[in-house]
Amino acid sequence: MPESVIEFLLNNDLDCFIQYGGVKDANMVYATGFRPPDPVFYLIFIDTDVLLVPQMEYHRALKESRVREVYSYEDLGWRELYKKEKNMDKAMAKAITNFLQSYGATSLGIPGNFPSGYGFVFEEYFDVKIVSNPFAHMRAVKTEYEIASIVESSHVAVDAITMVVEYLSNHVRELKKGKLTSEKLRNMVEVELFNQGYVAENTIVSSGVSTGNPHEVGNGKIEWNSHIILDIFPRSKRTGYCSDVTRTIFLGEVSDQITEMFDVVREAYVTAEKMVKEGIGVREIYNAVCDVFEERGYDTLRKESKKGFIHSTGHGVGLEVHELPSVADNDYILKAGNVITIEPGLYYPEIGGVRLENLVVVKKNGCQVLTRYPQEVWIRHE
Amino acid sequence: MPESVIEFLLNNDLDCFIQYGGVKDANMVYATGFRPPDPVFYLIFIDTDVLLVPQMEYHRALKESRVREVYSYEDLGWRELYKKEKNMDKAMAKAITNFLQSYGATSLGIPGNFPSGYGFVFEEYFDVKIVSNPFAHMRAVKTEYEIASIVESSHVAVDAITMVVEYLSNHVRELKKGKLTSEKLRNMVEVELFNQGYVAENTIVSSGVSTGNPHEVGNGKIEWNSHIILDIFPRSKRTGYCSDVTRTIFLGEVSDQITEMFDVVREAYVTAEKMVKEGIGVREIYNAVCDVFEERGYDTLRKESKKGFIHSTGHGVGLEVHELPSVADNDYILKAGNVITIEPGLYYPEIGGVRLENLVVVKKNGCQVLTRYPQEVWIRHE
Repeated sequence: MPESVIEFLLNNDLDCFIQYGGVKDANMVYATGFRPPDPVFYLIFIDTDVLLVPQMEYHRALKESRVREVYSYEDLGWRELYKKEKNMDKAMAKAITNFLQSYGATSLGIPGNFPSGYGFVFEEYFDVKIVSNPFAHMRAVKTEYEIASIVESSHVAVDAITMVVEYLSNHVRELKKGKLTSEKLRNMVEVELFNQGYVAENTIVSSGVSTGNPHEVGNGKIEWNSHIILDIFPRSKRTGYCSDVTRTIFLGEVSDQITEMFDVVREAYVTAEKMVKEGIGVREIYNAVCDVFEERGYDTLRKESKKGFIHSTGHGVGLEVHELPSVADNDYILKAGNVITIEPGLYYPEIGGVRLENLVVVKKNGCQVLTRYPQEVWIRHE
Repeated sequence: MPESVIEFLLNNDLDCFIQYGGVKDANMVYATGFRPPDPVFYLIFIDTDVLLVPQMEYHRALKESRVREVYSYEDLGWRELYKKEKNMDKAMAKAITNFLQSYGATSLGIPGNFPSGYGFVFEEYFDVKIVSNPFAHMRAVKTEYEIASIVESSHVAVDAITMVVEYLSNHVRELKKGKLTSEKLRNMVEVELFNQGYVAENTIVSSGVSTGNPHEVGNGKIEWNSHIILDIFPRSKRTGYCSDVTRTIFLGEVSDQITEMFDVVREAYVTAEKMVKEGIGVREIYNAVCDVFEERGYDTLRKESKKGFIHSTGHGVGLEVHELPSVADNDYILKAGNVITIEPGLYYPEIGGVRLENLVVVKKNGCQVLTRYPQEVWIRHE
């Protein structure tokens, strides 16, 4: 167990911290090294840590996890309690309650996403505190191995952008005839990434006015004399680490409204990128980006608008595409080793949207861009 | 809103049922038709239903979801509360509390997996009950469209089994030289499935003694004169529906211990398949399968053994690979339209394991097997 987690227990006056999750829960995979298809319980005490798993996962957990003690639900007497309770979740909560009491625990920490079905039962027996998951915070600062893994994913993401731009450049005639679709490009990107060992789903290839919704994945014909938002976020099947990059691609002639939006987004991007380094508060970056937009007459969420710049300036990327730190209106101070996106965008549902996103590693005196590719992409001629 | 959910509210004396989830939460996708990358709140009252989303998802939620009312967190005054609370989760819980009170709610139902971070706050203001998610129960009985989607996924899964068996048959020389690995076969299967529009990850291609752990995915060299467990569970990127099928593949000569285990597993499978029809209790099926194993001298979890038959007889398959109903020691009575696996297996960590799994649709007078492929697969000669 890392020192910082023990400190966390002491600082919060907790006998035990419990988290619950399976292979899709990055905190579980990060903390235990175990990848169970269905959720399991992970308990940390001051002097030991324990994994509680279904019997069918017991031997694998012993072999594959980094955790000191492993018990199956059967070991905890779950089955007999179930016969009495007739409710699986309650029987499980009781079995774990008995286990915790046998370890002398009276105060428990659980993260906000811990299931209420168990949390409500624990409340009856323990002093339960909702605490921020210490592993989520540890994950925000990457090790060298983690950064190397994200660099690898970033190369693959940029290669995919390159592939799409080359494909579009070679198919201008088809584009002009309206023969290319978002679905076709998305499939091309996702199949290529999968062949490289990466999973990408819901890759954004939105075009025209539908770009005005930031998470619109895009459907149907891609119009000439319009633009595309291409947002690619692959996860490596081998390492589990992700990347995240977005380009706005202009096709033929585009309205001044859109190109002016793009120029301001790029200005906001450059402003943010220049500020990123260890020791700066994310709120400062968020506000600087909002300032750029507002000075140029665009709307922001900061001004309580529902259009314009309506999301954060960025987010951490690692085992998850969205993780800590959030680069937004909060108190976080950047640390060297944070890996964050910088992704200002403008969105008007009746006009369309633009976004520019790079993934960067925070350094002592600045940042290193992992997704290097031209910021402005035009395809004008056959 | 479906009738059954209104009935559920009335029967449980609830003013409102709330669930929380994103695109990875099958209940959210099923209930709302909306696919948000990050989790959102879905509220059902007797006379309306409401989706609460981040501002950046607002327009898309209006357009894409089936929900009657959509509000953004900004509409709920989240931002001002956050300025006071300084804690995002607490501010969100307060904002939703105010919203619920403005709709006159005093009693709330939340599912067991609802985040404790919000659940604990709601407890202070409402009469909160943990209830079984009504959508999880609705999902257990499939519509015709859903069955058609699962049939489609099942064809693709069986094609992948066929592909692997043909590949092994054509590479006996390489197998004998120890030149094939689990990783190579897994990659071949997953790339092929992705090309067909299906996502498969952690496909099980375990071999030799490692088959003794049921969820071991398999690594390294595949030995001749041994056997493989091949467990494939692809999800369609288009429909979201899954399939699930397992075959044990014998390579060359295999020990009598393993073939005897296989014969008993097949006997257990046939016993279970014959029993499956509308109106039978899953406990009856589970017990019949345990009876077969115990009569032949094998261990079961029912007898509190940690080896032998240590998982359930099966589980529902739909938007998730594991969903209701669980075919195990519980009170569920099968209904026509359930889609379940039948998958007896035996596992001895020092010897190895075998499993045979088919996906079936429960019918009025029996069941229809969706994953038709020979149950016993031998590859003996070049």
